[in-house]
Amino acid sequence: MTLTTTLDTDVIHTVGFDADDTLWHSETYFSVTEDRFRALLAPWCSEEETSQRLLDRERNNLAVFGYGIKGFTLSMIETAIAASEGAIPVGAIQEIVSWGKEMLEHPVELIDGVEKTLDVVGEHYRLILLTKGDLFHQESKIAESGLAERFAGIEVMAEKDARSYQQVLARHGVDPAGFLMVGNSVRSDMLPIVEIGGQAIHVPYAITWGHEKVDPNERLGYVPAQAISDVPALLGLA
Amino acid sequence: MTLTTTLDTDVIHTVGFDADDTLWHSETYFSVTEDRFRALLAPWCSEEETSQRLLDRERNNLAVFGYGIKGFTLSMIETAIAASEGAIPVGAIQEIVSWGKEMLEHPVELIDGVEKTLDVVGEHYRLILLTKGDLFHQESKIAESGLAERFAGIEVMAEKDARSYQQVLARHGVDPAGFLMVGNSVRSDMLPIVEIGGQAIHVPYAITWGHEKVDPNERLGYVPAQAISDVPALLGLA
Repeated sequence: MTLTTTLDTDVIHTVGFDADDTLWHSETYFSVTEDRFRALLAPWCSEEETSQRLLDRERNNLAVFGYGIKGFTLSMIETAIAASEGAIPVGAIQEIVSWGKEMLEHPVELIDGVEKTLDVVGEHYRLILLTKGDLFHQESKIAESGLAERFAGIEVMAEKDARSYQQVLARHGVDPAGFLMVGNSVRSDMLPIVEIGGQAIHVPYAITWGHEKVDPNERLGYVPAQAISDVPALLGLA
Repeated sequence: MTLTTTLDTDVIHTVGFDADDTLWHSETYFSVTEDRFRALLAPWCSEEETSQRLLDRERNNLAVFGYGIKGFTLSMIETAIAASEGAIPVGAIQEIVSWGKEMLEHPVELIDGVEKTLDVVGEHYRLILLTKGDLFHQESKIAESGLAERFAGIEVMAEKDARSYQQVLARHGVDPAGFLMVGNSVRSDMLPIVEIGGQAIHVPYAITWGHEKVDPNERLGYVPAQAISDVPALLGLA
């Protein structure tokens, strides 16, 4: 892998977009909830300790829960009980469950420039939506976003690694060499795509979940952008 | 709709199988957990009241949580707190979370006759797997079952209604008129298939979740079987 700064646009025929934190806000709501969670546990733990314990718990639970808000909520509950050594009142547990529901019911808020970008890119390329997480919640958000019709295919993936991308692209008859992925996660949207021979544009989101953070030295083989509205220009469309 | 007792096998080219409680056991584990849950709440509620409260809570939460064990676990937690009027100790909440994890990690146990049935039916028809629930957990179970290779297509659906079946069948190029569905749920596997013009075989499971129960008068338009091993004979293959 070498440092790439420009795209080979000639070979691209299909553009995939990640959804959470690429098309619409998501991590923001996790972050707000985590603020509340740290405040709830303040009698027992420092903010730093609460965050570290929660991240550790989420990582330990990932193989059982997968991604999404329900697993996050259960991890908060377990962290609260363990970190308070069982001293947290049961009413606080109900509060945590309510936060989870609030997050699940939060209206979809599109990131600035998404519709215009999809319009421009969609005129020239086949678009597919490749998102990760809880099937039910992702489908609800896709429906609510009003963006579904712009995509020739929509896939909710349980994991975004090289193997699962290969399977999904094969299912849509997309050769990885002609595929460009646009997303906010280096770990989930960039590295596996580069690994299977595709191209990728990284559009950072303001907040990155601890689990998705990667060593800056791994930032190779994909094209950085400032915002999703930069994508048309990177494709030579603006 | 009229009462159907035989299949029109000539038109069938694709057979869909439900997974939970059709190919492998699932409701059994929910049932065992619910027994434990009723015992846990015995100081505050009769068994009947606990069951009713839990079912009501699950139904209320369905639009937010969707199907699956994580939502079930969160519904148990909410029910426990409400039914005990906040008197349940926080240690019992951790116990409930542990039950959820135990269910998620439970080894896949195939129902008797499944492999043989798939072998025989798969020799004559294209097989697809159409399951409902939590994406991550369903994919884990599909992988663990060892059955994945027998299916030309596998779909985890967020909901199994006429519209979602139509979308999924279209995606696999399957005309509903040539489609036969085999499953244990009248509500999820029979009625929507009959509605879109397909055929269906009902293979009952020992236990039916309250939410999936339907009025016996709705038992129209599909073929009843005793066990999955009856399916080849119903297709004239044995």
